[in-house]
Parts: sequence; C-alpha cells; structure tokens
Amino acid sequence: MSKIRLGVIGVGNMGRSHCKNIKEGKCPEIELVAIADANSKRIQAMKDDGYESVAYFEDAEAMMDSGLIDSVLVAIPHYQHAEYAIMAMKKGLHVMVEKPAGVYTKQAREMNDVAKESDVVFGMMFNQRTNHIYRKAKELVSSGQLGALRRVNWMITNWYRPQRYYDSGDWRATWSGEGGGVLLNQCPHQLDLLQWICGLPVRVQAFLKFGQWHDIEVEDDVTAYMEFENGATGCFVTTTGDAYGTNRLEIQLEKGKIVIEGGEIRAWEFAMSEPEFSRTTEDPFAKIEKKELEIETDGLNEQHYGVMNAFAGAILRGEPLVAKGEEGINGLMLSNAMHLSAWTESKVTLPIDEDLYYNELMKRVNTSRRKRNVVEIVADTSASY
Amino acid sequence: MSKIRLGVIGVGNMGRSHCKNIKEGKCPEIELVAIADANSKRIQAMKDDGYESVAYFEDAEAMMDSGLIDSVLVAIPHYQHAEYAIMAMKKGLHVMVEKPAGVYTKQAREMNDVAKESDVVFGMMFNQRTNHIYRKAKELVSSGQLGALRRVNWMITNWYRPQRYYDSGDWRATWSGEGGGVLLNQCPHQLDLLQWICGLPVRVQAFLKFGQWHDIEVEDDVTAYMEFENGATGCFVTTTGDAYGTNRLEIQLEKGKIVIEGGEIRAWEFAMSEPEFSRTTEDPFAKIEKKELEIETDGLNEQHYGVMNAFAGAILRGEPLVAKGEEGINGLMLSNAMHLSAWTESKVTLPIDEDLYYNELMKRVNTSRRKRNVVEIVADTSASY
Repeated sequence: MSKIRLGVIGVGNMGRSHCKNIKEGKCPEIELVAIADANSKRIQAMKDDGYESVAYFEDAEAMMDSGLIDSVLVAIPHYQHAEYAIMAMKKGLHVMVEKPAGVYTKQAREMNDVAKESDVVFGMMFNQRTNHIYRKAKELVSSGQLGALRRVNWMITNWYRPQRYYDSGDWRATWSGEGGGVLLNQCPHQLDLLQWICGLPVRVQAFLKFGQWHDIEVEDDVTAYMEFENGATGCFVTTTGDAYGTNRLEIQLEKGKIVIEGGEIRAWEFAMSEPEFSRTTEDPFAKIEKKELEIETDGLNEQHYGVMNAFAGAILRGEPLVAKGEEGINGLMLSNAMHLSAWTESKVTLPIDEDLYYNELMKRVNTSRRKRNVVEIVADTSASY
Repeated sequence: MSKIRLGVIGVGNMGRSHCKNIKEGKCPEIELVAIADANSKRIQAMKDDGYESVAYFEDAEAMMDSGLIDSVLVAIPHYQHAEYAIMAMKKGLHVMVEKPAGVYTKQAREMNDVAKESDVVFGMMFNQRTNHIYRKAKELVSSGQLGALRRVNWMITNWYRPQRYYDSGDWRATWSGEGGGVLLNQCPHQLDLLQWICGLPVRVQAFLKFGQWHDIEVEDDVTAYMEFENGATGCFVTTTGDAYGTNRLEIQLEKGKIVIEGGEIRAWEFAMSEPEFSRTTEDPFAKIEKKELEIETDGLNEQHYGVMNAFAGAILRGEPLVAKGEEGINGLMLSNAMHLSAWTESKVTLPIDEDLYYNELMKRVNTSRRKRNVVEIVADTSASY
C-alpha cells in the first residue's frame, strides 16, 4: 500500500494528538516522516514518547525543503496557519490545516488564492464533520426533504474552562496571541457546521462580553443573532463560563424540524409545508400533522483520524476530503462578523469589510495585555509551532 | 360561605371561558352576577348557554353603577384594559385584568397610580404563575440555593397560528387593534414569568420581523437579547410561524442549572459556585461536580380559576393574589422594550422612554392597514368588550 509522507508542523496539544493517532495505526495510509517544532523541549518529549525514527527539524521550512515529505499538517497557533500553509503550497506540498483557517478572513483568502493556483490537496481539520449526527443533519437539510430553512438556534455553552486553563500560556485568550476567545478557539467547529448545514447568514449582530467570567481580555460570552437570505433567522449562544452548559442545535424548516442534543438527533417531517398549510387550513388554531422520522445513521464518528485518512485518500486516489481547505473561510467569516459586530456595536453584512475587521483587530493586538508587543509575540508564538 | 359578586366585562373568547369555570363550580367563592358586552349577539349567546339568572348590560359603566357587583373582570381588547380597570377602581370595585396590562406602559402606570390611591384588590390574570413547574423555578431561583443568575434562554416558538387565525378579526394583528403581535398577544405570560423568576433585564436589543410568515402588519418572529444588572445575559425567541415549535426555558446560575421543557423541570446543583471553582481548581480542563436535584412539586396547575379563586380570597380574607395588578407593568415593559429596540434598531435601556415608545406606536397606529382610523377603531374594539 502506498502511503503519504507527512510532516507535522507543531507538536503542541493537537500536533501530538495527531501523531499519536498515526502511531496507533489509525491512519494506515499515512507515514509520519518528520516533525518540526522550534521548541526543543517539545522535540525531546516526542523522542521520549517513542517517535525515534522520525526526522526532527527546528525550522519548518527546512523540513519542507528536505525532500522527505509530500504533505504537511499545520498545527501551530492560529495567527500562523495561513503563513505556513501558503509556504507549503508554494513548495508543492499537500496541506492539512488545523482549525481555524486563520484569525482573520484576509489571511484565509490569501491562503485560498494560493491554493487555487497550485495543484496540491488542501484540507481543513473540521473533524466534527465526521460525526454521523451532523452528517445526517447536513443530509436532511441539503436533500430538501424538509424544505427551506426557517430558524437555527445553537446553544453551545458546554465549553467550560476554569481560570487555570487561561493561565496555562501567556498567549492564551489574548488579542495578540490568539486573536479572540471562545469564538476562535472553541467554536470554529460549530461555526463551520452551522454554515455547512444551514449556509452562511447575510447579516449578523452579536453581543460579546470580554473577560466576563474570567480574567482574560477576549470574549468568553457570546449571543449572536443571524439573518439568512431567505428571511430565516438564527441565534448562536456560547460561553466558556457556564459550569454545566448545554449543546443543543435546533433547526426549524418549512416542512420539518431537527433537534440535536445529548449526542442524539431527532427529526420530524410535516404532512405539508407550513406556508401551504397556513394558506389552506380553515381552523384558526389548526396544528400541522407531523411524523417523527426514524433516523438511521452509520454510527461513525472518526473525528481527527477520519479527516486525516480522507486527506490521504484525496492525495493517493483523488477521493473527497472531509472539508476542503477553501471552506475554512466560511466559519471564520462568521466568527469575524460576530467580533466586528460587537466591536462596532452594529449589525454587519456578510461578506464583512475585511480591512475594517483587520484594523479593529490590530487596535486590540497593539494594546493587548501581553505587553511584549506584536513583534515579540510573533516570535514568541512561532517559538511554539 | 360569603362570595364575591362578580361582573364580567367582555364575553369574547376569554370572558366566556371565565364564566364557564364559575358555572362549572370551579370558583366556589365567586358568584357571577352580571355581564357587560356592547355586542348583543354575544349577550344572546351567553343567554343561550344557560346564563339566565345573570344581569346583562350593554354598557360596562352601567353595570359598575348598578350596585349589583363588588368586583369586575376586564376581558376586553388590550387597548382598553387600563381605561375600564381605572373606571372600576374609581368606583370602589375590585378589579381583575386580563393580560396584558395594556398596550403601552404609560397606560399600565396610570392604572397602577389609581390602584395605589384606592383600597380595592387589583389582580392580573397571569394564570401561568399557577403552574407548579414555573412556581418551582421561581422558588429555586429566589431561594438563592443555586446562586446568582448567569444566563436565561427561553425558546417559546410553539405559538403556531395559521393565516386563518389572523383573518378571524379585522382588529387582529394590527397596530390599531392590538398594538403588537406575538409579543403582545401570545407572550405576555412568558414575559411575566421571565421577569418574575429572573428579574427584569436592564438592556434589551430585539430583532422583530413584521409579517414575516403571515399577511399581517405586526411582528410574528422575535429574537431578543437581554442584559441583566449583574452581567447575566439572556435570549428570548418566539414566533407564531413555526409549525412545530419548542418551549424550552434554561436558566444557568452560578451554582446550578434549571431546564424546563416538555412540561418537566430538571435542576442541578453544583458542589461549589462557579467563580470559586474557577479560581481554585488547578486542572485546566476541570469539570465541576454536580448533582441532579430531586424536584418535587405540588403538581397543581389551576390556571385561570386558580387566579380567580385567589382573587376572591384576597377580597374576602386578605389572602395573597397569584399576581398583583401592579406587576403587570413589568412584562409589558419588556415587551415594549423589544418593540422599541426593533423600531429604533438600537439597544434600549430599561425603564424605557415611555413617550418615545408611545409616539413610535402611534406612528404605526396612524398608518395601520385597518384603514378606518384610530377613532373608529376604538369604537370598534369597544363594540366587542
């Protein structure tokens, strides 16, 4: 069996976890050939964990130029995702990027532009798309069986983090180090799934609270209102401050309803579409006939290694990715729109004004509490890729 | 047993329903003595239903002056609630008012001012407060056992109404006839419960869609964001357009969580308050210890007749009301704030600018689709009290 020859850029939490999957045999078409990390302690930790036959590099570009690898996994801090993905693409290497696609859509757009001009496979680590529950929801909505979107409400408040989490790195939850809080660190998956299943809204107004429940400068409490092109509305609520939160997604459609909660999906189909029912019933208090659908899923939820295996299949045999790299910009657009709306205290239209967003972000980066300013910070974060 | 001698003003849907409860013996301390309705067809309908021994009046004031009654139930269209309640109070009659307290808080405030100067018992028909589930939630929050409010999310989208409902009266769902849509007709109960259990927010920004799912001029789709004095946030979502909606109330507190859905209440208590846990745990991914509370309620849900019996008890023996009339202004303040926020496309602070609200409302009343202008409309609605 032929295998792709992968180089991992960054062996922090996520990078190590990917290496472990490969080591444990979950990715039969991937050979872990090389690891790059500027932090020598991390390299030593990998060696201690038994990754002896891997080539190590302190410099990611040197790894890319080594001829050892044909593909990279970018698992470094958000701000640098685009930079290293672009570097790899330009060198003809296939690229898998950890979420989010970047901190601001300008970055993601540049990355997408380079991808368009190159022949490499470009994937995004949206591992939640492998979850059979969300795949089923996507299928139900996309098939048109339940009609057009009416309302989507996602309450994803089970991202609880105590203060200790934020105190575990000086870059964490800072404008300069991460570029955002719960929206950028915890929620890229949900924002991607939201746009994947329901499409992107056209207008967003979001209410963000910064350091409401923690001693941090970025948002840890979000309530966002969304309007879609067809008049549908939505609400997205998230926080890292609710000690025992909720993960409940409800999608109301013209001809049905889907509820995902507690790891289960339920769906109902109406006897006719609501607009037709409303127009034709003669009973002022009529209720629509509905039946609960017997939902069968394949039960698969391969998460990270499923994304990686699809990446290998795409490179080796042209099979579909779990998430195309180019789609990473959508969830980021939604996240950027929420930040911009909160900063400007106004409703914003999508696609957002990317320059305005960037300028507003930089204002915050420049006064970020992590005082050793942006230049030093970039050096600092690169020190942990 | 002594009884109160009740006169009912308006025997439309609600008025008739109250009369039926009394007739069926559910209100042992209430004697239905008189009925006033300017619509002779309605009076005839009551006679046909067997209410022969009751005194009938075409004019509510004549009934009040008849000496037959000591109390009135006001069950006429929203705009006239305050007017007739005030009239009755000034004549020394005890007053029970159907929800909402009025269309705008100026009305409710005037009604409350008159009540303050009089000795009569003044109650509001917030029958949902008799529901054991909501009483339990109120008790849990008010006791302080679960700590301070963090977040309240109420998705009350099961108020489905087809177009036929709106076409059943020319005053329905018009600015001139009702003064609002789902917020004023369907949701006064939930808005009252929300403020009863959680308190009033200090700021509200609401997104209303007018005639989104029906051919009406008022709102039939609402997403409202709320901020409370202590930093807690909330979201209230309602519509009459979702064919198979949801009624789910979640309250997150510092030391616990309450979820009401499907007629059931569940609650959890944390081992310590979240701020203390966040401050003291050394595990960055620590989860709080929690236990589900065994909730026992008295199972009672007396609804309208429970409110009426408490009203009789208040008059006869000074017992507590289910809802004091003066509290009707709170839910209305919330509803008015949501309208004002949507009309002005801005976040509004509570208490709202009542004159601004009134002026904005009158703009809409004056151009209301029900063309026979405001004067005629007032005559028209009084024709159905």
